[in-house]
Amino acid sequence: MLFGKILRSKYAHARVMKIDTSKAEALDGVMAVITAKDTPRIKFGFMKDNLPLKEEKVLSCRDEIAAVAAIDEQTAARAIELIDVEYEKITPVFDPLEAIGSGAPQLHEEADKNIAKISFSFRAGNPEAAFSRSDTVCLENTFKVHFMTHTALGTMGSLASYDSNGILTIWANTQAPFMYLKDLAEALGIPGEKIRVIQPFIGGAFGRGMDLYPIDVIAALLSMKTGRPVKILLSREEDLSYSPTRQPAIIKLKTAASKGGQLLARKVEVFLDVGAYVSWGAFDARVMMATASGQYRVENVQFDAWPIYTNNPSSGTMRGAGNPQINFAIESQMDMLAEKLGLDPIELRVRNANKPGDVTSQGMKISTCAMEETLRLAAKEIGWKGRGKEGKNRGIGFSTLFHVAGGARVYRSDGCGAMIKIDDFGKVTIFTGASEIGTGSDTSITQIVAEELWIPLSKIELINKDTALKPWDVGIHASRTTFIGGNAALRAARDAKKQLLRLAAKDLGEDPSNLEIRNGEIFSLSNPRNRVDYAKLLRRSHFNREGTMIMSSSFFDPPTEMSDPETFIGNISMTYGFGTQAVLVEVDNETGKIDVLKVIAVHDAGRILNPNGAEGQIQGGIVMSLSYAMVEQLILEEGMVMNPSFADYKILTSMEIPDIKVSFVGEPDPSGPFGAKGLGEHGCIPTAAALSNAVYDAIGIRLFELPLTSDKVLQAVLNSANAR
Amino acid sequence: MLFGKILRSKYAHARVMKIDTSKAEALDGVMAVITAKDTPRIKFGFMKDNLPLKEEKVLSCRDEIAAVAAIDEQTAARAIELIDVEYEKITPVFDPLEAIGSGAPQLHEEADKNIAKISFSFRAGNPEAAFSRSDTVCLENTFKVHFMTHTALGTMGSLASYDSNGILTIWANTQAPFMYLKDLAEALGIPGEKIRVIQPFIGGAFGRGMDLYPIDVIAALLSMKTGRPVKILLSREEDLSYSPTRQPAIIKLKTAASKGGQLLARKVEVFLDVGAYVSWGAFDARVMMATASGQYRVENVQFDAWPIYTNNPSSGTMRGAGNPQINFAIESQMDMLAEKLGLDPIELRVRNANKPGDVTSQGMKISTCAMEETLRLAAKEIGWKGRGKEGKNRGIGFSTLFHVAGGARVYRSDGCGAMIKIDDFGKVTIFTGASEIGTGSDTSITQIVAEELWIPLSKIELINKDTALKPWDVGIHASRTTFIGGNAALRAARDAKKQLLRLAAKDLGEDPSNLEIRNGEIFSLSNPRNRVDYAKLLRRSHFNREGTMIMSSSFFDPPTEMSDPETFIGNISMTYGFGTQAVLVEVDNETGKIDVLKVIAVHDAGRILNPNGAEGQIQGGIVMSLSYAMVEQLILEEGMVMNPSFADYKILTSMEIPDIKVSFVGEPDPSGPFGAKGLGEHGCIPTAAALSNAVYDAIGIRLFELPLTSDKVLQAVLNSANAR
Repeated sequence: MLFGKILRSKYAHARVMKIDTSKAEALDGVMAVITAKDTPRIKFGFMKDNLPLKEEKVLSCRDEIAAVAAIDEQTAARAIELIDVEYEKITPVFDPLEAIGSGAPQLHEEADKNIAKISFSFRAGNPEAAFSRSDTVCLENTFKVHFMTHTALGTMGSLASYDSNGILTIWANTQAPFMYLKDLAEALGIPGEKIRVIQPFIGGAFGRGMDLYPIDVIAALLSMKTGRPVKILLSREEDLSYSPTRQPAIIKLKTAASKGGQLLARKVEVFLDVGAYVSWGAFDARVMMATASGQYRVENVQFDAWPIYTNNPSSGTMRGAGNPQINFAIESQMDMLAEKLGLDPIELRVRNANKPGDVTSQGMKISTCAMEETLRLAAKEIGWKGRGKEGKNRGIGFSTLFHVAGGARVYRSDGCGAMIKIDDFGKVTIFTGASEIGTGSDTSITQIVAEELWIPLSKIELINKDTALKPWDVGIHASRTTFIGGNAALRAARDAKKQLLRLAAKDLGEDPSNLEIRNGEIFSLSNPRNRVDYAKLLRRSHFNREGTMIMSSSFFDPPTEMSDPETFIGNISMTYGFGTQAVLVEVDNETGKIDVLKVIAVHDAGRILNPNGAEGQIQGGIVMSLSYAMVEQLILEEGMVMNPSFADYKILTSMEIPDIKVSFVGEPDPSGPFGAKGLGEHGCIPTAAALSNAVYDAIGIRLFELPLTSDKVLQAVLNSANAR
Repeated sequence: MLFGKILRSKYAHARVMKIDTSKAEALDGVMAVITAKDTPRIKFGFMKDNLPLKEEKVLSCRDEIAAVAAIDEQTAARAIELIDVEYEKITPVFDPLEAIGSGAPQLHEEADKNIAKISFSFRAGNPEAAFSRSDTVCLENTFKVHFMTHTALGTMGSLASYDSNGILTIWANTQAPFMYLKDLAEALGIPGEKIRVIQPFIGGAFGRGMDLYPIDVIAALLSMKTGRPVKILLSREEDLSYSPTRQPAIIKLKTAASKGGQLLARKVEVFLDVGAYVSWGAFDARVMMATASGQYRVENVQFDAWPIYTNNPSSGTMRGAGNPQINFAIESQMDMLAEKLGLDPIELRVRNANKPGDVTSQGMKISTCAMEETLRLAAKEIGWKGRGKEGKNRGIGFSTLFHVAGGARVYRSDGCGAMIKIDDFGKVTIFTGASEIGTGSDTSITQIVAEELWIPLSKIELINKDTALKPWDVGIHASRTTFIGGNAALRAARDAKKQLLRLAAKDLGEDPSNLEIRNGEIFSLSNPRNRVDYAKLLRRSHFNREGTMIMSSSFFDPPTEMSDPETFIGNISMTYGFGTQAVLVEVDNETGKIDVLKVIAVHDAGRILNPNGAEGQIQGGIVMSLSYAMVEQLILEEGMVMNPSFADYKILTSMEIPDIKVSFVGEPDPSGPFGAKGLGEHGCIPTAAALSNAVYDAIGIRLFELPLTSDKVLQAVLNSANAR
């Protein structure tokens, strides 16, 4: 195996005049040095605007210019230092609003005014009419969400091995191995069936595993050139500097409500800083749109988002996919609206809560929905007595959430396959398309199969690390895996059970409809003594003339629809999830330090299949978002990350985590496996707004820009006459 | 990973008085030393007569007494030398006829007269009456077949890794991974679902991969004790000394025929030298029985075989599983009979040839059968002009064969599973139970699927190296894999094709019955312009609301029956194979050297799916058997192999291989995949007899004991007045 290293741009915006790799090539132990001329120059990425190695122009400090494969990491690093690049600097632009202004440098030829050609404009009803009515209460604010990183403990890496049969095997920390395979095949210009993606246990992905990156294409190209496996693994510093970030944005939000507290209209304008190249991060705008049009009942909506190229690092998508960002704006303003209307913030939210049977203006069909119940229980559990009732410097804030929970058809397929084989020891092997990236989906899928067949969990093995073996799946995102992968596994298990009962019927002399399985025993419902152990039955059926063994399969793609590309109408998910979080804080107004004392989370995720796992997912989401809302921030200067280490990039650690209580309410969803809805992202969505609302309740200070660092809070206290 | 070594007995028969492992345990780098007391003492093997490590008594020089795991091979070897064992020698017995005589030491308590308790006695008709008729011609001879080794280029080995979840993964050069798994689980006393068998590419098995060996159990025990992977790999010297051998035997054969050349009766007595422990080698007697009762039409049959324990190395089964041995006896005697009757040897065989529709006295139902055609074509192709017509010292010999060719139900299941998934690039993945050990079955199974779906071979990938992934199969033996594994894959492919045509029907607006696939295009039979590329169709069906992907499966276990354990009647195979080989030799009667000038092989294996592969299989079988018949022999002294190296154990090499011409005749078999019958073992079955008959034709010398080494031939020439 060889080790690869990448030379990146010295400047955020420059012309590349000359690349001299001769000294690097001459270094002992260097097996290959590649630049753009060694690549097929096929553009790839969400908008096909990126190249694995850049030729004429670099657009960010992350931009890849050359790569080396050498016998060890040290040699590769030394070789990178030996590559000489001549640049001609170009004026950069780092602010998205400047980038769309006149006089800004144009980064991509095809992007006029640096706006990527993808529309996120939605209209419902007549928002302008609502805003201009004399009897409404209007609020208009601008919110800003910042650069944060995914903080995955496993740094980004890629290990490619191109063999003599022309098969490229790639070990990748992707969360969408089949999409990755397709994208990589296109980027390399080779047929998809020549690529095999192995997805080892992954040290966290949180959304950044959705895209293919230059590092992947480069590892493949180096392996194809050398005929040897090549591993590129980013150091922590590289990972913090060159990985995608959560999509930052400027969100202008205007809301109108009746004096009685009925939401009438929302107008949202989002300016997305996509950085140098567009990723799935830009697609966060679609999730923002769904929340803008769907969280609470609101008839008149105007939503526009613009993905804007800058010379900043490219942003990606991250857990919640835009929802934590827009939720901060919407739920901050809900809190302001309640105050302006003189309403209790719980009461305002209840009056506008989504209800079962509602269809949002984007056509999203809400089936089960316990939003109101989550509000009431969260208020009760946090001990809500009303505004300003927590005593000096203490306060409580609330926020709700609306998110897909039954898959999300954001691509032409939202499907997942499953195959089952049962051996003669009664061991059940599930081949599932579903990827496990730490969410616990392997466990929930195993549970679903164990429950349907009613056999012990220990009898089940799950296979899903290799595209050569597992059936297709679109990837783990949008909180879809237990729902979609679970439904696929459930259907395959149902077929296996049917086969099993058919065998038992013959064996026991009963009708299959009169048989059931419990704890691995198949018995007659009318004569329970007539029974047989399922593994024994399998052996009897197997070790016989014209014997049989049980195999089954299913591909589950839900009856949902992609949004119409013009109108953005379409029921993209089979069901939706809801929740309320309440945060109790104490703020030190001499230091600006926020002390989070308690978080109450009440979520509607249908039937909970794995209570520990579900609670863990919600807790993890809350911790991630508290960290997002309070401390995490990539500091950029001239497009370069200035704090690429965990010494300088602060994250909340265990000592700083408050008491968190998680409860689940709501009905089993008829479309979910055993009634389950998705919840993987839900915990992280409402936390920032709830925190900010709690700070306001505590000290009367409202901040419109994340994170709520102590210095920012303190500065606001000093600036404000309002502060208590 | 640690390296394991095994201490074996110094004597062929002894009591173990004391084992002192203290010095070995004290050696630096030694991680574990185990003896019988560290094992669960569970007997295993074909007759459950063996222990992984022996405690009180050793019965052969191969017997395992202790084992070591150390950080490297050198340390392990050194530790083995440091183990002190005190023995008390017992009189050994090496001759099977002596072993059943009075006064012989008894090796196993449960085996009276050293005869293993397994019956191989078959009767049909009234052979004694036929023998005593006055108008018959009778012949009675004793043939002896010897110890040979499988000569697999990959030596025996086992790599076991027991993990912290209690899962034992074992890399094994087995040819029956699921049987191996079951046997290993029983030998270790752990549940089968805790074991995963990985079968890497194997450097030859030829039958010895049918059994579980002490080496496998020892590797597992060492890994379980150390918690680390442990690899034991035999050196060439160990492999030749301690691996199983082809089943040696003394065969007494009596045949009666009418003066007109009709076979009337056969009486066969076989004394099998099984060595110290019984393996699948003893089961060779069942194949011998089938040949004795089924090769040619013969009504009256008496067959008895006795598996006899001796202090020799344990014998195993080997390609042909007893048939090359019994064929040598039967076809030598057919030649003698023809001479005695004054008939041409071809003519005698044609008069008694099996025919389609025949049922043998054991109940084996012959479907397709071109035995007569193989005889006539072989005679023609070798240029047969009659006995003694080849000139001085030259001669031609013939031999035919009868063997299973449609599976062989020698175990309660003869089944194999297959699963297929097709991805959206049109790539077809087959998970097959069938094991590839160098026979080309991976290719033939791939061909079968490609043919059924009519797509290019390059679009197909086959998965079958891991019991965790592949469906069950009984193992590769009895020339069954293309037939059984092929039928399973064909049925799964038919289901996949049905699904594909159903999708196409919807897409093209046609009835599925009006559609066909050619070269990956699905088209309307009535309007061939109405067509669609199958991969495009798959993508269209996949990337759609409620999309689909194709998965299918099949378990094929033939409608055959195990022989009745008392009467030995039962149609164990769906079809049978036939063939004739003709050998032209020149014998130097001054040196005894046999020069093989030409071999003609004409086989009936139904439709040949892969002409190159089939010819290669037949050629390989012929070479193996020429080597068996002419030079290969393990020389034993006091139960110890005296020639354990390729310097002293002679095999034929490429310079000594004659011209071989292979032809295939016969009809496609209705039960085979696309008409194929099995042929993997067939090439090696008739060669020895044809060679011996050719030597007789050349110089008038008949030998009754293999191998026909130069010294043996020369001695016979010197002893014989007959020799020309």
